[in-house]
Amino acid sequence: MSIAAVDHYLQNAAPRFEGELLDLLRIPSVSAESRYAPEVRRAAEFVRQQFLSLGFQSEAIETDGHPIVYAESPAVPGAPTVLVYGHYDVQPADPLELWQTPPFEPAIRDGFVFARGATDDKGQMFTHIKSAEAWVKGAGRVPVNLKYVIEGEEEVGSNNLERFLEGAKTRLAADVAVISDTSQFGPGKPAVTHGLRGIVACEVTLHGPRQDLHSGIFGGSIANPANGLARLIASLHDDSGRIRIPGFYEGIPPLTSAERKRLQDLNFDEGAYLSEIAVPAAHGEPGFSTLERRWVRPTCDINGMTSGYQGEGPKTIIPAWARAKITCRLVPHQDPERILHSLEGFLRAQLLPGLRLEFKSWHGCPGYAFDTDNRFMQAACRAIESAFGVPPVFIREGGTIPVVESFRRILGLDTLLLGWGQNTDNLHGPNEHFSLQDFHRGIRASAHLWYQLSQLTP
Amino acid sequence: MSIAAVDHYLQNAAPRFEGELLDLLRIPSVSAESRYAPEVRRAAEFVRQQFLSLGFQSEAIETDGHPIVYAESPAVPGAPTVLVYGHYDVQPADPLELWQTPPFEPAIRDGFVFARGATDDKGQMFTHIKSAEAWVKGAGRVPVNLKYVIEGEEEVGSNNLERFLEGAKTRLAADVAVISDTSQFGPGKPAVTHGLRGIVACEVTLHGPRQDLHSGIFGGSIANPANGLARLIASLHDDSGRIRIPGFYEGIPPLTSAERKRLQDLNFDEGAYLSEIAVPAAHGEPGFSTLERRWVRPTCDINGMTSGYQGEGPKTIIPAWARAKITCRLVPHQDPERILHSLEGFLRAQLLPGLRLEFKSWHGCPGYAFDTDNRFMQAACRAIESAFGVPPVFIREGGTIPVVESFRRILGLDTLLLGWGQNTDNLHGPNEHFSLQDFHRGIRASAHLWYQLSQLTP
Repeated sequence: MSIAAVDHYLQNAAPRFEGELLDLLRIPSVSAESRYAPEVRRAAEFVRQQFLSLGFQSEAIETDGHPIVYAESPAVPGAPTVLVYGHYDVQPADPLELWQTPPFEPAIRDGFVFARGATDDKGQMFTHIKSAEAWVKGAGRVPVNLKYVIEGEEEVGSNNLERFLEGAKTRLAADVAVISDTSQFGPGKPAVTHGLRGIVACEVTLHGPRQDLHSGIFGGSIANPANGLARLIASLHDDSGRIRIPGFYEGIPPLTSAERKRLQDLNFDEGAYLSEIAVPAAHGEPGFSTLERRWVRPTCDINGMTSGYQGEGPKTIIPAWARAKITCRLVPHQDPERILHSLEGFLRAQLLPGLRLEFKSWHGCPGYAFDTDNRFMQAACRAIESAFGVPPVFIREGGTIPVVESFRRILGLDTLLLGWGQNTDNLHGPNEHFSLQDFHRGIRASAHLWYQLSQLTP
Repeated sequence: MSIAAVDHYLQNAAPRFEGELLDLLRIPSVSAESRYAPEVRRAAEFVRQQFLSLGFQSEAIETDGHPIVYAESPAVPGAPTVLVYGHYDVQPADPLELWQTPPFEPAIRDGFVFARGATDDKGQMFTHIKSAEAWVKGAGRVPVNLKYVIEGEEEVGSNNLERFLEGAKTRLAADVAVISDTSQFGPGKPAVTHGLRGIVACEVTLHGPRQDLHSGIFGGSIANPANGLARLIASLHDDSGRIRIPGFYEGIPPLTSAERKRLQDLNFDEGAYLSEIAVPAAHGEPGFSTLERRWVRPTCDINGMTSGYQGEGPKTIIPAWARAKITCRLVPHQDPERILHSLEGFLRAQLLPGLRLEFKSWHGCPGYAFDTDNRFMQAACRAIESAFGVPPVFIREGGTIPVVESFRRILGLDTLLLGWGQNTDNLHGPNEHFSLQDFHRGIRASAHLWYQLSQLTP
């Protein structure tokens, strides 16, 4: 088993790997649209055949939705076991007219492949299959135990994944999970994402009068649901920007100076960040930098508001009801259920007389952090440095990747989030693309990760 | 000239008056819908013919929209001059399926005439024509100088009325105006409305990022326009319900104990009022009763709010913008322009960093009050008592009737607001109706008003 032989294989196979990636990208496996269901299945079969060609056991596991492709490399007793997760389904491609070349006719321009799914997640997921091929074909076998869960419903909420994980706990037993569905910190700045924010989502409706009322005849004598809702929303933050929900920050450990310094050392360009979204000034929780506010501090944002008349010009009514959608992004040590419960109680306690509050919430997800000193983390850093020529930076992600939380909760696994793409790859948008250089560096980093993990003492 | 002869005439003519009212109600003079334009014109002509048949000068004055019918009774030198305002246009009749009988096929049931326009305003306006007829035909001539402005665009904003008033100031010179387009305080409780609230209307839009943003990636680092808007709206009232716009209450004289007592003496049924609109508790400015809050105190109500995602379920975005429609109902001594200016400045001063405020406002209207001790008022009270058997109560109206303010501003006239209808007559709704007893009592009160005014010493 020689890593040199693997590297050699990768160099020779590079053009073929690109061709195979293009074949996979040609399949319009749009999970959201039922007319594409046969194509989704075709993509699953494509992935399964990849595994079979490596001599792995592989099956397409039926679910209530699209199949999950499961695969296992031949057992290597004593070696670590890695659970690789990815998805073969893609977002819808609309609006088609904004694509320079058709979304399912992959085109290469300036070193990038343009196609729906190029980076999210076919291109990134494929690196972990091709790295295995390099080991099998270049060195005889993979040096670790690989288990693959490649699903077809990530873009529609992974509704059937948890049930599969629950039912296959033993089969999925592993030491660590690996996912490449995030981004580098910037071009040439590979990153390991070691933290994610969680989320709770709810909808608050204030009910007032039976129907919209004349604001002249009734105005001033009853609580207006829209004013009342604004009052509740405003109460969520104090004047400084801190969140006022009781117990909201409870249990969150203070940011260590080491963590602070690590974020500072990233030299985040706040000016460029703000000008990209055309916002003239940052705003958030006092005492924290913009990166800290995005990655390690919780939020409470209104996602939508509806009430009364929304057309042109004035209309003199007291609306019968008013509604807001609220999400809080959570950090580790915040409990989603407790936060929701406290939020609901906090709002109810402030209700104006005559208004009725309806509270609806959805399944939440806690925040996640993976210790960067962990030996799997360190192995990943070494592997990435071998492939990219520079060590990765540690970053966090302000969004939520529910599967990472599911892996921890159901399988007791931490996840190495190794992103080969860029934030600017137009994920979910027109002209999605992926750097071919990063595709190959990703494959190499993956191959070196299997090597580094095989070198760990049990 | 004998009021007894007039009363006698009214008694005999009653059935014919009903027949003529039904003829007028059969004309679908819906001003909002252009397909009804010929019918609107037909209603104007019907009204003009009424005046001509009394020997009055009358013309249909062309405007950019529907014509204004103007009429003048033969001059009575030395007698007071009264400007009667009404409108011959009606609201659209939809939804048609909710009408028990077709809206333009008037039907009489249980002493009520059911038709679109029955009370608003054809039925009420017609009383002031029939009262004149009773004088002309029963007593030889009207004892005062009557000038009529009957417009055809009240239900679409009276857009051409002000220009007409401005251009006809001399012709319209009068001592007092009379309008019957309001309501009694309740069945058998005739009322004189001596105060109206004014209004200012504006729209506030907060602009944030260029487009909706991912609430995970960006959340916490920039001001959210929806949260920011809620903060501004909430700032409009203090915790007790008082409005916080600087100078908002400035110049409003305290409520006198006489005025307070007069409102108390109305024995307003707050329980019935609230249960009608299904609101379990009243709420408003502290230190004032519900009637006071509706009639003599100003308000600040949100009429509508829009921001971000309004569909089903959660969506994790920071909205690019958020908008609210705001109206304030004003009382006398509040200046609409100053209030708007103060409101805008108040909101701008509290803007969170990174948000931009767009402020749009519409033409306002001040509040209005007419001294109840005035001799025209007292004449109206005596006339109403003669017709209804009980003296009227003095009430105010929380809404705005812009023509009353126009009369004061342009013509220097105060208005007697003498409502013969009921709040429950389904104005603007299906099955609009008007009590025939009140139709006749209204005609009689109008006839007696001309008499009472003629008795005033110049």
